[in-house]
Amino acid sequence: MNITQDVYRPSLALLTDLYQLTMAYGYWKSGESEKESVFNLFFRKNPFHGGFTVSCGLAYIIDLISDYKFEEEDTAYLSTLQGKDGSPLFEPEFLVYLRELKFSCSVSAIPEGTIVFAHEPLVRLMGPILQCQLLETALLNIINFQSLIATKAARITIAAKGDPVLEFGLRRAQGIDGALSASRAAYIGGCASTSNVLAGKLFGIPVAGTHAHSWIMSFENELAAFKSYASAMPHNCVLLVDTYDTIQGIKNAIEIAGMLRSQGKMLQGIRIDSGDLAYFSIQARQMLDQAGFPDVKVVASNDLDEHIIASLKEQDAEIDMWGIGTKMVTAFDQPALGAVYKLSAIKKGEEWDYKIKLSEQSVKINNPGLQQVRRFYDNGRYIADMIFDETHQITEHYRIIDPMDATKRRTIDQNTMQFEDLLQPIFIQGHLVYQSPSIEATKALVKEGLNKFYKGVKRFVNPHTYVVGLHQDLYDKKMELILKLRNGIEEKK
Amino acid sequence: MNITQDVYRPSLALLTDLYQLTMAYGYWKSGESEKESVFNLFFRKNPFHGGFTVSCGLAYIIDLISDYKFEEEDTAYLSTLQGKDGSPLFEPEFLVYLRELKFSCSVSAIPEGTIVFAHEPLVRLMGPILQCQLLETALLNIINFQSLIATKAARITIAAKGDPVLEFGLRRAQGIDGALSASRAAYIGGCASTSNVLAGKLFGIPVAGTHAHSWIMSFENELAAFKSYASAMPHNCVLLVDTYDTIQGIKNAIEIAGMLRSQGKMLQGIRIDSGDLAYFSIQARQMLDQAGFPDVKVVASNDLDEHIIASLKEQDAEIDMWGIGTKMVTAFDQPALGAVYKLSAIKKGEEWDYKIKLSEQSVKINNPGLQQVRRFYDNGRYIADMIFDETHQITEHYRIIDPMDATKRRTIDQNTMQFEDLLQPIFIQGHLVYQSPSIEATKALVKEGLNKFYKGVKRFVNPHTYVVGLHQDLYDKKMELILKLRNGIEEKK
Repeated sequence: MNITQDVYRPSLALLTDLYQLTMAYGYWKSGESEKESVFNLFFRKNPFHGGFTVSCGLAYIIDLISDYKFEEEDTAYLSTLQGKDGSPLFEPEFLVYLRELKFSCSVSAIPEGTIVFAHEPLVRLMGPILQCQLLETALLNIINFQSLIATKAARITIAAKGDPVLEFGLRRAQGIDGALSASRAAYIGGCASTSNVLAGKLFGIPVAGTHAHSWIMSFENELAAFKSYASAMPHNCVLLVDTYDTIQGIKNAIEIAGMLRSQGKMLQGIRIDSGDLAYFSIQARQMLDQAGFPDVKVVASNDLDEHIIASLKEQDAEIDMWGIGTKMVTAFDQPALGAVYKLSAIKKGEEWDYKIKLSEQSVKINNPGLQQVRRFYDNGRYIADMIFDETHQITEHYRIIDPMDATKRRTIDQNTMQFEDLLQPIFIQGHLVYQSPSIEATKALVKEGLNKFYKGVKRFVNPHTYVVGLHQDLYDKKMELILKLRNGIEEKK
Repeated sequence: MNITQDVYRPSLALLTDLYQLTMAYGYWKSGESEKESVFNLFFRKNPFHGGFTVSCGLAYIIDLISDYKFEEEDTAYLSTLQGKDGSPLFEPEFLVYLRELKFSCSVSAIPEGTIVFAHEPLVRLMGPILQCQLLETALLNIINFQSLIATKAARITIAAKGDPVLEFGLRRAQGIDGALSASRAAYIGGCASTSNVLAGKLFGIPVAGTHAHSWIMSFENELAAFKSYASAMPHNCVLLVDTYDTIQGIKNAIEIAGMLRSQGKMLQGIRIDSGDLAYFSIQARQMLDQAGFPDVKVVASNDLDEHIIASLKEQDAEIDMWGIGTKMVTAFDQPALGAVYKLSAIKKGEEWDYKIKLSEQSVKINNPGLQQVRRFYDNGRYIADMIFDETHQITEHYRIIDPMDATKRRTIDQNTMQFEDLLQPIFIQGHLVYQSPSIEATKALVKEGLNKFYKGVKRFVNPHTYVVGLHQDLYDKKMELILKLRNGIEEKK
């Protein structure tokens, strides 16, 4: 799958906010377009009041950047835009510049499927400020949404405790790609399959599904509908039992299970889509077992999410598979992640000039510099992450400091710790140097990663806050910048 | 703009749930694929606890249906799908059938931009059951999302009381098309512009935007950054004043306003993106007025929605334009509409056999028959909608009954009432007979439509419930069907 070659027809160079183009124009006009700069994409808070986030979307971004190009029709459109006085917004020479623009930034990123935390740079661009700026919006669009959905899917999968989770959100997803990329992210996050056939085709995800209430309604009665379906699909037969009356539906399904068995085949399952799922699933299990069909699975659906699944498990519901739509693909309880993309350094001669944006809210002050993330582990368990500046020498023994609470500190002795650095080079000066793993490998990474965190990080209610600190040098540099900026403002007043 | 020709590269025939294809296969196997049927797409509750919904998405659907075709690569993919025993899910002859399938249904729909209510069929398909079923998921995906966003935008526009609302949600939208179709729907719902340049190009929507915090941070200081931007964009200059200190930022912007005026140009506005928007906007207005710049506008942004706008208006905030992102394009407080698509009739010989799905919850029991919606008005105000069956004769004087509460009834005398029927023919037996209005005309329809409803329908808190009733004949038919089905189940028990 290549998003720009297989999914979208137009060039995606214009998938950006207009202000990226007006700023690009400003940089070009003032001769500053090639100014070397560093931008980081990060979020400030795990979604869903949770303890972790699953990074997702990098493969889309690689496709988008690899094919990044302003086409003739793109600049033709831009040439029609006007300022308030009716004059063209952009000079023709700038549009020629865009047409000839070749992506030349270096991109580092945390691989898709990695478990990540607030303030960690998921993607880092280094290169001409004009290019870094033009890409901002598309990078945010893709990473924000896919990471959100992969995280939701991971949470739902955790709640299901090993039971397969089937994603079928296409009908309620936010637009066509809102569905396609949600199916992809949900699969990476832990789902077993999607109902979305186009997603199956594009991404190589298993597809699943059987029939709807309308199938039942189009026949004289439920039993006739079941019979007809079982004849057509004897090896993919899950019967929806709640069109008219759930208990009667289960009885009819048992009759079909017998019919299939007499043909040497097997009813795969029944699905309950309404009513008290705990009660009906327990009834269904009993009835199926008593009729000699302990292998027929019970599938449940109807506006489920991780909390309802956990509650149904708590009630000893006899549900073997979970169908999840709206609540997963729209991330219903928090439909946006809110990642941002901030300038953290600009080259001044041979030196990097570190940058932060001030804010009344400390959480909104970004970290400066050329950031990398080091993840420490001990006995196969992750214990802390450190955000540090790649250009600084790391000694063996030092402190890391919580960026939001300076009283939270931890001493790290690298001699006694194992670690891995999370950001990997993806593009070097515009050249792709990274091969995306398969979607199966990415999915496996999520599962393995989650297993390496303490359970408390994964619980839904008041999860344990995993330690993420700034290396002391980076912390000190940040404080120095904040005080310098604040003093500068005070002096002016 | 044509979605299948301009936006998406793959054929969208596979943009469907797998169960639509397994049911299609079942119908084909049992020789029932051409069975004439009627399906209605409707929702059960206005979103956002609101009093109305704006229909949106029909133009997308027309494109999708007009180009509906299973390509070679689609059926090649379907041929790889397997049942539990490893046998192919579909016989090769069925895939040939799909390849040769030509859309032959009749489609009626309520035009985009119409104000609609719960239970009203927004789209109605009549034709071979196999085709009606295959299209279900894509129709729901498109109408659900675009109607949701158009409604959100209409609500935000109402809150803004005539001030321009600028949509800039691309970075937080749910996927690429989640952004593109949101920009389209938001514009139809009432927004003045989008930041999304690709949406501007594809849909002909005005685009707007100026610069980000990073622009300021990339210069030595704010004033130098402002000067450079104003030089590059003298006719499209809105300055973001809150990068370091908002009051100082306003002072710097006033200096630029003076500079532009001395060149015979004009600063368009300033933007405040953080802090207390009421306080800072009032300060900004005073400072701008005192400096002799009463025409410089104040633009506000930062996680706004209709409720925050209403509150800021209440606090006499001096805000002239509103920038809205996340809360609009994801419909943050309710990110899915929940429309459904239900079978309501099947041809049996020359007669229509009316269909409903029972449910424990009355609101989930659908209305049967071949439905049309008649909207009554009096003195230019809409007063009630009636859902009726097109095949029944309508007398001049009759009752309409609330489908959810039979004690709510209203008598209609058609002699004294003006009315219009909302559903219009779109396709007749597969042939397109409708020309979509321009996006500007659709946008105008929303505005005019909203003006024709009483104010109470549009308020945010406990809105007035607009009267929507079933024609008495349709109501009686529905009751008869419910009782017949329920009695049938009782007898079996």
